[in-house]
Amino acid sequence: MARKQGSHSDITGPRVRDAALRLIARHGYAAVSMRQIASEVGIQAGALYNYTPDKQTLLFDLMRGHMADLLAALEAADLQGDSLSRLEGFTRFHIRFHLPRPDQVFVSYMELRNLSDENFAAVEAMRRTYEDALESILRAGEAEGVFAVPDPRITTMALIAMLTGISNWYRAGGRLESDKIEAIYWDMVRRAVTA
Amino acid sequence: MARKQGSHSDITGPRVRDAALRLIARHGYAAVSMRQIASEVGIQAGALYNYTPDKQTLLFDLMRGHMADLLAALEAADLQGDSLSRLEGFTRFHIRFHLPRPDQVFVSYMELRNLSDENFAAVEAMRRTYEDALESILRAGEAEGVFAVPDPRITTMALIAMLTGISNWYRAGGRLESDKIEAIYWDMVRRAVTA
Repeated sequence: MARKQGSHSDITGPRVRDAALRLIARHGYAAVSMRQIASEVGIQAGALYNYTPDKQTLLFDLMRGHMADLLAALEAADLQGDSLSRLEGFTRFHIRFHLPRPDQVFVSYMELRNLSDENFAAVEAMRRTYEDALESILRAGEAEGVFAVPDPRITTMALIAMLTGISNWYRAGGRLESDKIEAIYWDMVRRAVTA
Repeated sequence: MARKQGSHSDITGPRVRDAALRLIARHGYAAVSMRQIASEVGIQAGALYNYTPDKQTLLFDLMRGHMADLLAALEAADLQGDSLSRLEGFTRFHIRFHLPRPDQVFVSYMELRNLSDENFAAVEAMRRTYEDALESILRAGEAEGVFAVPDPRITTMALIAMLTGISNWYRAGGRLESDKIEAIYWDMVRRAVTA
């Protein structure tokens, strides 16, 4: 265990992923070479293959890692209470998680087309798990008579698109603080779904 | 005028734009070459330069053309009536315009980063004009006391992201018809903003 602490792989692995994320977000997967990623990290192109077998695996690791972080953070958020409280919790959680990760949001949406079929299916399944968490809150509220949501699946997609869209215009240090944004969006979400 | 009718340029120009849109949506701007676009159209690479001076101009033409079509269609839709009617008109217009154009939606969002500064500014100004049309409806409804929209600019961005997000999951011939989708989204939009 002591050997792993601060080992070459520990330090360089995250730097490879950071560089790949930054370059792919800026130029697109197809335009970025393993050589460019290695150069950005400051290692030889050959050494990059110690960290990832190929570019497809690197892309998949980025997208799967993003979804795994999201699902783990949602579980840690441990949304409790009635359906309205859980919907508020989900809304605020979604904004807080995505706001500091614009590159991940962009790459996760844009590069789905460049995943192999198998990798696409794996990422889609994780995305579906996340969507299902919101959908189950909406269905519970509908059953309780608190929400009026004629098609919970569509409403799920609509709310996630609305909330994730903040990444298109939000810039840290801009006109609005993150907590003000949360309040405005939660107000819209609540009104859009309550009976 | 008779000479222009059915001329080479008339026929091939739109095919160049269609091919470029399809290839860029599939592979990304940076990964697509002028040679590939020419090959897709079935002309010599050199002949492509009769239609566009370079790849940047082609991308700009696609994105500017999409925004020009959108603004012209919105003007033709000629939204009238009180603010609630105009908001419904805008919502239905936005869905109807974007649903058959998933490649344009994708490229317009994804390839902003690949526009030159000058071209980016031009496309952004057109996008802002479109957003302003919705914002002015929200401000009018707020002034009339029909809408409760504490920050019309944010609500504008939220609603546009929600509506444009339909392109992420909608497939023609899927579970829901376009008019059913319009009805569900209009219901959410109306409830999200009305006082």
